Amino acid sequence: MKTLISVEQQAIAAKKAAKTLSLLSETDKNDALNTLADYIEKNVERIIEANEEDLQKGKEKGYDEAYMDRLALSESRVFALAKGLRDVAELEDPTGDILSEWTLENGLQVQQVRVPLGVIGMIYEARPNVTADAAGLALKSGNAIVLKGGSSSISSNRAIVEVLHEALRKTKIPAEAVQFIDSTDRAAAQQLFTMKEHIDVLIPRGGAKLISAVVSNATVPVLETGTGNCHIYVDEEADVEKALNIIVNAKTDRPAVCNAAETVILHENWLKKHSSALAESFAAHSITVHGDEKAAVYLPDVIPANEQDWSDEFLSLDIAVKVVCTLKEALEHIERYGTKHSEAIITENKRTAMQFMALADAAALYHNASTRFTDGSALGFGAEIGISTQKLHARGPMGLPALTTVKYLMHGTGQIR
Amino acid sequence: MKTLISVEQQAIAAKKAAKTLSLLSETDKNDALNTLADYIEKNVERIIEANEEDLQKGKEKGYDEAYMDRLALSESRVFALAKGLRDVAELEDPTGDILSEWTLENGLQVQQVRVPLGVIGMIYEARPNVTADAAGLALKSGNAIVLKGGSSSISSNRAIVEVLHEALRKTKIPAEAVQFIDSTDRAAAQQLFTMKEHIDVLIPRGGAKLISAVVSNATVPVLETGTGNCHIYVDEEADVEKALNIIVNAKTDRPAVCNAAETVILHENWLKKHSSALAESFAAHSITVHGDEKAAVYLPDVIPANEQDWSDEFLSLDIAVKVVCTLKEALEHIERYGTKHSEAIITENKRTAMQFMALADAAALYHNASTRFTDGSALGFGAEIGISTQKLHARGPMGLPALTTVKYLMHGTGQIR
Repeated sequence: MKTLISVEQQAIAAKKAAKTLSLLSETDKNDALNTLADYIEKNVERIIEANEEDLQKGKEKGYDEAYMDRLALSESRVFALAKGLRDVAELEDPTGDILSEWTLENGLQVQQVRVPLGVIGMIYEARPNVTADAAGLALKSGNAIVLKGGSSSISSNRAIVEVLHEALRKTKIPAEAVQFIDSTDRAAAQQLFTMKEHIDVLIPRGGAKLISAVVSNATVPVLETGTGNCHIYVDEEADVEKALNIIVNAKTDRPAVCNAAETVILHENWLKKHSSALAESFAAHSITVHGDEKAAVYLPDVIPANEQDWSDEFLSLDIAVKVVCTLKEALEHIERYGTKHSEAIITENKRTAMQFMALADAAALYHNASTRFTDGSALGFGAEIGISTQKLHARGPMGLPALTTVKYLMHGTGQIR
Repeated sequence: MKTLISVEQQAIAAKKAAKTLSLLSETDKNDALNTLADYIEKNVERIIEANEEDLQKGKEKGYDEAYMDRLALSESRVFALAKGLRDVAELEDPTGDILSEWTLENGLQVQQVRVPLGVIGMIYEARPNVTADAAGLALKSGNAIVLKGGSSSISSNRAIVEVLHEALRKTKIPAEAVQFIDSTDRAAAQQLFTMKEHIDVLIPRGGAKLISAVVSNATVPVLETGTGNCHIYVDEEADVEKALNIIVNAKTDRPAVCNAAETVILHENWLKKHSSALAESFAAHSITVHGDEKAAVYLPDVIPANEQDWSDEFLSLDIAVKVVCTLKEALEHIERYGTKHSEAIITENKRTAMQFMALADAAALYHNASTRFTDGSALGFGAEIGISTQKLHARGPMGLPALTTVKYLMHGTGQIR
């Protein structure tokens, strides 16, 4: 019970701090972000020591290599956190922007102005870098943040927040604008789900299970960042070199990220002609194929694909291969299994490409390019708080504007209706 | 069970129709909307007859006058439905707009394009006009819609949808793009709450109870249209004439709507000077005052205000009156009881007004004007699907752009990362 009461108190403190923060100038916020970066740099050892505690516990628990890698903070990774904060200071502050303004016939002046959301609840898993990254983006956009990280990285997160708090006390941003839920209790996170009075938005970042738990149980609005079950559709009229390059890049460049490709959908007429080149490419890059019956006709070493292969992310050098006879079939497969993240078509036929891009329902649609570009830094947003796979508020990589809302400000001289 | 299965089938049919609809030109959509208007006009009698069934049942159930008025469709009201559809045809189609475009260094062309949301689930109460209004706005913005109206207006809603379907069959929009859940079963509405596969957004319109049921139980994202517990803060430096005019207008012009004022917060120094003028205004407009202890010191006939008087909408000629000594106290009261809809300050001090507008958290903030302007048609949006009191996606009166999302379209020549 003690934890639960304190989570609410923390949220209330965050809300109060958000008011002060929302009135600060861009210069004050940038100065504060640079001070945070200074303190992170001065405390590299302290953060790494705390991280070693997490790594030790992780080893004892037998986490796999990929998980341990996400958990680990090297010296260069800590310096990257500081660099990230300085980069956010350089980004344009979206708040205060007047998005539109007009005057009614009666003289009432109407302005639509961008303002901070208020308090962001961030619920995340292993990566401790999210602690500093999310705090930086929240503060720059004038928001307070309540951080609830994964229990496996709690020592690292605690150390980072301690350093941020020490730094904030030297700035105009109240230290209470960054709240850290220092608990491994799931009930603590769950209390955030329904705290509509104090929290304006929840952003879950992590696996499908975490995100679905938040979406199903939250009454606070959620910015859903999602898993990417991304498809590449190779049309009958696809250029073979482009197709092979893009498939290999989208699958192997960083297999564990959300914009990696998980399924290739091949037009049968294309596959007939290019099966040996495709098979060579797969073999040369150690890609394991899980395919349907037709794929097994044209390609060697095909493991029969099951329902899970079509619907889940492999996040490894495995790929699912489906063979179709029409664009319609390809779109139906994407409709059924896609997660609305990123979908690509490879074709030299512009009309087919336009149809695909109009009818496939996802944040990002690619014609003759790798799905790997769905990423805030690749697209030039500077930094991202996550990639939205939902349709409301923000879709695709979310930069600072996704952390804002609007207000209508009406200036009158006594107007009545 | 039969109903439940058919609701899902209706949602699937809507999703399919949405694809066809999303490819239509603006002219095709406008032609269709004008055809819908023609058919509504040709079928006035049929719609009014169906409405009489609802009114008869409503009378038997003993609904109050205000409710019966919301339910009733006169000839002029039906013609207004047709006019509404023609007005929507005149509005600019937001879909297809390129919101931004740029080219990456590697030559990849990036476009952020506005597209329809897909399928809208509309859950509403007594007013049968919502059936035609919501369908018109959805279709114009390229969306299919699943309508679930209140059981008290089911005959009217059914007749309107029958007419819309007959009309749609003469247009390029598939009739399946408008789905009507012909059931008074609550489970039918509830099934929409979690149909994430087929429904892209839920818009509840009605009382606080309906909206809270949707928000609490839906996993489909919700556009929350809200109740308005709107406050008018009369500052120490308020002009007496402006203050009285605005209070009377915001309270009495249409007491039952969400942008009507429910509470006046008075600075004690102002009240001291102007208590008799205020009391006269209240009396002249038959306004009943529910006040705190201080209000009772300065004003006659004050009913002691209870917690509910502060927190709920009266939707009548009742008003709550709170007396404060500072702006801070006023803001705290609004923070505690406000519904983030519309809040006003009356003052001749610009600095105080700016502070109020920066710190009060609501969709619309007014300086020296009535809260009654928070309305799509008053602000010149042409039509609105509701007034959002949430902060994500859309805030304040929601016109056609609120029914859209974006897609990133990436045009490449083989780019990989």
